[in-house]
Amino acid sequence: MTRPPLSPTERSTVRRGAARAHLERERLDAILDEALVCHVSMVLDGAPLVIPTGFGRDGDRLYLHGSSGAASMRAAAGMPVCVAVTLLDGIVYSRSAFHHSVNHRSAVIHGLAHPVVDAVEKNHALRVLTEHIAPGSWDAGRPPTAKELARTAVLAVDLYEASVKIRTGGPNDDPEDIEADRTWAGVLPMVTTWGRPVACARLSPGTPVPAYVTER
Amino acid sequence: MTRPPLSPTERSTVRRGAARAHLERERLDAILDEALVCHVSMVLDGAPLVIPTGFGRDGDRLYLHGSSGAASMRAAAGMPVCVAVTLLDGIVYSRSAFHHSVNHRSAVIHGLAHPVVDAVEKNHALRVLTEHIAPGSWDAGRPPTAKELARTAVLAVDLYEASVKIRTGGPNDDPEDIEADRTWAGVLPMVTTWGRPVACARLSPGTPVPAYVTER
Repeated sequence: MTRPPLSPTERSTVRRGAARAHLERERLDAILDEALVCHVSMVLDGAPLVIPTGFGRDGDRLYLHGSSGAASMRAAAGMPVCVAVTLLDGIVYSRSAFHHSVNHRSAVIHGLAHPVVDAVEKNHALRVLTEHIAPGSWDAGRPPTAKELARTAVLAVDLYEASVKIRTGGPNDDPEDIEADRTWAGVLPMVTTWGRPVACARLSPGTPVPAYVTER
Repeated sequence: MTRPPLSPTERSTVRRGAARAHLERERLDAILDEALVCHVSMVLDGAPLVIPTGFGRDGDRLYLHGSSGAASMRAAAGMPVCVAVTLLDGIVYSRSAFHHSVNHRSAVIHGLAHPVVDAVEKNHALRVLTEHIAPGSWDAGRPPTAKELARTAVLAVDLYEASVKIRTGGPNDDPEDIEADRTWAGVLPMVTTWGRPVACARLSPGTPVPAYVTER
């Protein structure tokens, strides 16, 4: 089935840097699949609140979770939320302060946060969330108990209203600054890598590090 | 002058994972000084909006900037905002899905976004913002023109109401899961590094990469 492109609403239409806007769902998917945390915002007591949190994507649905006792999870349930997912790729040094920039891939998603209460969907959502942050670990570890499920709140946001922006490449300097040729300009790439796994001291000695960690 | 610790208000008191909360201003400073972008949230037309953006810190004041025509900058001016700054340090693989976690250092700041309109403070704020994202580049490049200053909106948020959370170390598994010893557990560190600088193609051939880039 062909998935329709993102259809910008008034608030999800990119106006600043519109040339960097993308409407293909695959771009949104790729950003969500690569990023490890999102920033979810909501209105709490009339004021904005934004918190970093894990997430997972299943098709056109985004799952968020948190403690079922957390004020933020209670405030967001059934309410509008806005979720930003941001990947940084490099610092763009320009010939003028005004044109400095950051190469990035970002998504800003608007939607209602539906509480996931059905036990089957909730368990599925937690699998999606766990496999997003630690692929391969769901089947290897102990699944949640009923008590743990009750202590966890899950919210679902449908992925329909989203702004996707991507900046790549070098500086966009003014012609006279390029002509003046007084200042180095270019991109300093940023790379996020994995370090060497550090085993828990309470494992049996010699427990091998699984491939889902070493090959990540 | 001794700076007082952060004094948590009702909304900035960490309740979930309270053992990870910190009140020393130096912890907040260190997170802000290391992170390159923040996520700023506001209420726009009654709904939450969060966007990634650059920032800079000068003492106990946070500066944000954006296009003076951007709806977000207009919406935030003079209004409450919430700003999250998040650094990721590693994925914590636990023996159960419930105890998976992410080592992180994060700050969630609440405050009013004061529009910075005074020309001297605005220029200073842009220097702080520029030197945060690209240290050493302000003096090397062309400063903003009056027209560029007019096209840029700057907001200042005083750093008084903030939640700082830091998670370090290995998994916090349940004793029976440790005893069962069925699943590898540990931390996969995340490291963000700089790649090799990519010079703009329109520089004079042989232009050296400045030390403020190579030694970053």
